[in-house]
Amino acid sequence: MKVDARIWLKRKEEAYAKLKEDLEIGYLDEDIIDVLEEIFKRDEAFTVSSCSGRIVIVDSQYPWERKDSTVLFKKHQPITLSEIIDIINQPAVSAMWLVVVGPIIHVSTLTLREAFRILKVAREAGFKHSGILSVSRKGITVELRTGIRLAVLLKVKNELVINYEKLEEIIGIANKALILGKVRLKKLLEVLKSSTLKEG
Amino acid sequence: MKVDARIWLKRKEEAYAKLKEDLEIGYLDEDIIDVLEEIFKRDEAFTVSSCSGRIVIVDSQYPWERKDSTVLFKKHQPITLSEIIDIINQPAVSAMWLVVVGPIIHVSTLTLREAFRILKVAREAGFKHSGILSVSRKGITVELRTGIRLAVLLKVKNELVINYEKLEEIIGIANKALILGKVRLKKLLEVLKSSTLKEG
Repeated sequence: MKVDARIWLKRKEEAYAKLKEDLEIGYLDEDIIDVLEEIFKRDEAFTVSSCSGRIVIVDSQYPWERKDSTVLFKKHQPITLSEIIDIINQPAVSAMWLVVVGPIIHVSTLTLREAFRILKVAREAGFKHSGILSVSRKGITVELRTGIRLAVLLKVKNELVINYEKLEEIIGIANKALILGKVRLKKLLEVLKSSTLKEG
Repeated sequence: MKVDARIWLKRKEEAYAKLKEDLEIGYLDEDIIDVLEEIFKRDEAFTVSSCSGRIVIVDSQYPWERKDSTVLFKKHQPITLSEIIDIINQPAVSAMWLVVVGPIIHVSTLTLREAFRILKVAREAGFKHSGILSVSRKGITVELRTGIRLAVLLKVKNELVINYEKLEEIIGIANKALILGKVRLKKLLEVLKSSTLKEG
């Protein structure tokens, strides 16, 4: 199993054009742009997809389910009670979860050596759940992921599971978790920059 | 970076002796023994560590933290309200979380080819968050992990965040999540067995 350098390079070029396009539209999270550009600077890597971390309210039996699940709210920045109170006051079809996910970045590399270099950088920055997902002719896919993840059960059907007066506190904890993720992203940028210097 | 076959084989032998020992003591989860043995049967793989999935009550600021965190309760099987009610009635130093973690298995392989074969098997069985963590002379480490993970906030300091009368319902959801993990483990065993047949 070896990566086809021609196919891979073409994908990197396309991904870069897409990145520039997303930047112009303002489609990308500000929090993550520098990290993506730093990865693109590396000869043997580019980013496929990314999320700077988000808070989601989802209606589903379990928070990891995609089928029969509805996203009711999504934001990549801290939230306030007034933003979500109307949603919480609606009955849930199944169960309502407040989910916080830390940053996730999918990187494609040309070589395994580069994949392991990226993994080392990621670990150093606190992206402890990172790993190589797959290898094909198109490239080696590396997932960078922290352990930051909350899934707070808010509601089952139309009944609250939490104390209404504790909502502010729960939101505070969710926001702090989100921010912790953004801090890791900053750390990732730092470690990436110093690793490029060392290798360059 | 290449695995030293001699070192790796020695580690596999030691790990197998340890597995047999753990089996005799009854230290291992019944739910996972067959999977571990199936992996050991493969020429180029063995398991380093494993957990069949568990429910934990932890006192910590965030459920993913290790520092300043205290495990108050741990069980690899479904729980009942009476088992945990005394714990929940205690005040928390920081926050009290009911955490459900799906099965996790760390496999060491001799070759990258085998690592990717194991990854393919894992994906097929619903271990969607699996990946290669590292490569060294000692072996290639592959983590098999599902997306099953709950962290329900129960308490902040000495105040409940959830409605007391909803505890039974929350425990029911946690138990069902745990069992979903065990079902994936059974699926993993099936896929492993049929993949060994195909390769053999």
